[in-house]
Amino acid sequence: MAIENPFYTEELHGPYELVGLGDFELEEGGVIPGLEIAVSTHGELNAARDNCILVPTWYSGTHQIMEQVYIGPGRALDPADWFIVVANQIGNGLSSSPHNVTGPHAGPAFPKVRIADDVRAQERLLRERFGVEELALVIGGSMGAQQTWEWAVRYPDRVRRAAPIAGTAQNTQHDFLYTQTLMDALMADPGWQGGAYASHLDVAEGLRMHGRIAAVMGWSTEWYKQELWRRTGEFETFEDFTRDFTHGYHEVLDPNSLLTMGWKWQRADVALNTGGDLAAALGRIEAIVYAMPISEDMFFPPRDVEAEVALVPNGELRVIDSLDGHMGLIATDPGYLPQVEANLRELLAREA
Amino acid sequence: MAIENPFYTEELHGPYELVGLGDFELEEGGVIPGLEIAVSTHGELNAARDNCILVPTWYSGTHQIMEQVYIGPGRALDPADWFIVVANQIGNGLSSSPHNVTGPHAGPAFPKVRIADDVRAQERLLRERFGVEELALVIGGSMGAQQTWEWAVRYPDRVRRAAPIAGTAQNTQHDFLYTQTLMDALMADPGWQGGAYASHLDVAEGLRMHGRIAAVMGWSTEWYKQELWRRTGEFETFEDFTRDFTHGYHEVLDPNSLLTMGWKWQRADVALNTGGDLAAALGRIEAIVYAMPISEDMFFPPRDVEAEVALVPNGELRVIDSLDGHMGLIATDPGYLPQVEANLRELLAREA
Repeated sequence: MAIENPFYTEELHGPYELVGLGDFELEEGGVIPGLEIAVSTHGELNAARDNCILVPTWYSGTHQIMEQVYIGPGRALDPADWFIVVANQIGNGLSSSPHNVTGPHAGPAFPKVRIADDVRAQERLLRERFGVEELALVIGGSMGAQQTWEWAVRYPDRVRRAAPIAGTAQNTQHDFLYTQTLMDALMADPGWQGGAYASHLDVAEGLRMHGRIAAVMGWSTEWYKQELWRRTGEFETFEDFTRDFTHGYHEVLDPNSLLTMGWKWQRADVALNTGGDLAAALGRIEAIVYAMPISEDMFFPPRDVEAEVALVPNGELRVIDSLDGHMGLIATDPGYLPQVEANLRELLAREA
Repeated sequence: MAIENPFYTEELHGPYELVGLGDFELEEGGVIPGLEIAVSTHGELNAARDNCILVPTWYSGTHQIMEQVYIGPGRALDPADWFIVVANQIGNGLSSSPHNVTGPHAGPAFPKVRIADDVRAQERLLRERFGVEELALVIGGSMGAQQTWEWAVRYPDRVRRAAPIAGTAQNTQHDFLYTQTLMDALMADPGWQGGAYASHLDVAEGLRMHGRIAAVMGWSTEWYKQELWRRTGEFETFEDFTRDFTHGYHEVLDPNSLLTMGWKWQRADVALNTGGDLAAALGRIEAIVYAMPISEDMFFPPRDVEAEVALVPNGELRVIDSLDGHMGLIATDPGYLPQVEANLRELLAREA
């Protein structure tokens, strides 16, 4: 039974197309009947079909934030030059998700999904819907970076360039535990009812607590010290910021959607492609990889990414300097995007 | 009504004396009738009464962990040389606390306590019970550091040396929010019942979640990456560590005790002594201060302490290098204690 949630609409997120992939078998053994991936595209595919850029989405995000921050005329990802496909990840509320499917897989019965499922689904939709078999670039942040890494490892001869921002190829024990606390916040709310809630509003307290935990880890200690939440001009007091962002951003989301993505995030691991051998997985990447951790990220810290990119034959570490930490991804730090854009322009100019 | 909790006993924590201070008026306006502070002492007070060292306790800790880690023959805090008083903070489960008082102040009705209340209570007990009016050193970690800072600011001419480890003088917005998530975990458990639970066992799930959040922030990402939980030899697998420490350590604690301390931790601020002027507060410190943040601390980071100690006339920053982060305080990193001890020996050797 589908649950009404006015947040997951084109009115709020901008237009997207639902691409059907039929009954989709999952890495964990389940099936999503009639899987649909929500995609938006920008620009035109050229005759050689070699100018496609894939942009997967992060935890709680949709195609919209990727469009707002990373895509547009004059940007490195300029639709005048590239055919850009933004693919909403499975379970994100727009693509097939616990709250928007009906039947025996709805709600708490939605099957367990892995990063590799997203990448396999994206591979099919690019081929079947757009006739694209090779990617000029895969770029994503956070869980989008997890998908980017998986693409480069799973389809090494079909990814020419990869730009994982603020994310690792193999999730860490620490990050697993952090994600668990986000999930705990939702499941601790009696209104969650094992996932069988009638409305996300029944889990409002859990969603707010989820937002508070995300806020502790999302920005850096120095970001708070300097009260950089003032920067956008939207928030006069810290209480405003808490109400409108820490709580407000999260209250509207679907709890089971977050839990589906959280479970997936925890288990991201490209080494599953190579029997657990991380060096072998990263070693087979053919793409030029510019890995861009954010200097103050508290859960995907630069040193974790540095250790991984050292195992990539054509990999370079490009640390993005920002006091915003992981949330730098939304580019409220005016110094963030120029650094990312410079790296992307350089990467896209390289023969690959 | 007192609640049975076998954790808060001399059998488990070693001997202590309960020092009564009568009805104690609090900074927030309430009163704790017949306040008792649990103290342990080590060594002898000399004739000049000038060899006393005060050791306050941190969140969830008691005198025991301070004794085990920091006090003993051959240590910088050697009972052969010093009269060492370890004072359990109000609300920690051994001193007067929500679960061990009876009457109208019991349980959820336990009044709000501030760091300044602990320091005022300690000042009285040192004077009234031991005849001590001047301290050779105050040393504490985390919330113990908050009390140490408060001592140095509140009684500037009576503290000769101060060694706050892994703690700030004025709590930050970020740290306030982090502490809130610890408290949220307890209050989200339906068994907490607004603090009116019959047994801490009713809040077991909340206590375990509290433990998981503490684990995310307590150790560094690199500590997890290197699986340094293996170091003690006590845990064969990460599941063992989670069960015995992340969960086991927290399951036995009293939720209202943690909430009392959490509220206090959030609001630590020496500038309350000077109308909100932090520079004025720290500027009046007469003690020689060796501030020792831990390099990888995720919520009392070195740069926050650096900014504060720069305002202390005789203050020095001594960063302790440890991948253990905040939990370095318990000295499972063999490299931790030698650094702290070297600083303490140097500090204690200085004329003050």
